[in-house]
Amino acid sequence: MMNKMISLYKDDINDLEKIFRINLINSCTGFKSANLLGSVGSDGIDNVAIFSSVTHLGSNPPLVGFVLRPKTENRNTYDNIIETGFFTINHIHINDVKDAHHTSAKYPKNISEFDKTKLEKILIGEFIAPYVKSSRIKLGCKYVNEYHIKENGTILIVASIEELHIKEGIIKEDGLIRLDVAESVTINGLDVYLKTVMIDRFEYARPNNN
Amino acid sequence: MMNKMISLYKDDINDLEKIFRINLINSCTGFKSANLLGSVGSDGIDNVAIFSSVTHLGSNPPLVGFVLRPKTENRNTYDNIIETGFFTINHIHINDVKDAHHTSAKYPKNISEFDKTKLEKILIGEFIAPYVKSSRIKLGCKYVNEYHIKENGTILIVASIEELHIKEGIIKEDGLIRLDVAESVTINGLDVYLKTVMIDRFEYARPNNN
Repeated sequence: MMNKMISLYKDDINDLEKIFRINLINSCTGFKSANLLGSVGSDGIDNVAIFSSVTHLGSNPPLVGFVLRPKTENRNTYDNIIETGFFTINHIHINDVKDAHHTSAKYPKNISEFDKTKLEKILIGEFIAPYVKSSRIKLGCKYVNEYHIKENGTILIVASIEELHIKEGIIKEDGLIRLDVAESVTINGLDVYLKTVMIDRFEYARPNNN
Repeated sequence: MMNKMISLYKDDINDLEKIFRINLINSCTGFKSANLLGSVGSDGIDNVAIFSSVTHLGSNPPLVGFVLRPKTENRNTYDNIIETGFFTINHIHINDVKDAHHTSAKYPKNISEFDKTKLEKILIGEFIAPYVKSSRIKLGCKYVNEYHIKENGTILIVASIEELHIKEGIIKEDGLIRLDVAESVTINGLDVYLKTVMIDRFEYARPNNN
């Protein structure tokens, strides 16, 4: 039996009440990654902020991307990355979702979110940007480039992975990090946090001859 | 107690065995969206292919992005989008993961993956590109622009959402689509599919004065 569907066309979407449209469009593309970006300004003040747009861009060289909102938004993370050239990406886990979400509050640049949440900062080696201590998967990244998406004023930041710090026991023999075992969470829309349960893992797909 | 961490630095990552590095780097950024992109060429042959890089770019106007690999890969989806200007994004659900994964096999352009899997095609109204019938969240999209990521030869495709077809009962009063209720899946790395369980939903975060 065919599911009964609600259809919305371009004009319908434009006419939606603003908050309804934001929630709908933010959830219709599927699940998002849940990361805390750690950075420090040239003034020495740390910043940690939640991002749901961190994406894999390539493995050789190891590159990641994430999307920043237009300049009208609080952009301490962007300013810090431009000032110092480095930042960290830290997975959000089940026990940290409340504090991670709170980093989306708009604090002024002279206040560190590490002082406003239970999230603890940790420095590793010589890396300038702060990591989140409780995070089981930490990436140390270097700013490489930015692409300005002229259609809506967002910016795609491209960064290289300089170092990885991963909790023992969650990397499989073939390199896969089991994110469910790590208890990393995923995001639905702007504000829903979810844990995951593995369904299946498949072999590399090859054409069949039927 | 501090978790024991495995640290890998740039040279360590470069020296990893190729498959190990691909699995590691593909899983270290977190969970990905799981979508089937439907398209049709000017020759009338349909294509449906899995993508894990579809990302929200903005809600006003409603824009999505996804990343295509360099030209060395099979790019029937890209060719079709350029030829016709339109494509569909269809969520992958728990019952479809095996067939959805199989669309990553490299079939020649004259073979439709709809004929090689149990995935069924459905056309809706005048929209030229095929939808996946079993998908409970379907987006009809129009190609808008592309950005070439010179650092590794990937392409960011930017597209507008022209229409939405969403199963009844999964949209909340405030517009949020409950992806867990829809049984949409998420992807870990290249080949692990997972279902989700909601942990919590939070209010819009505001600074506190403590």
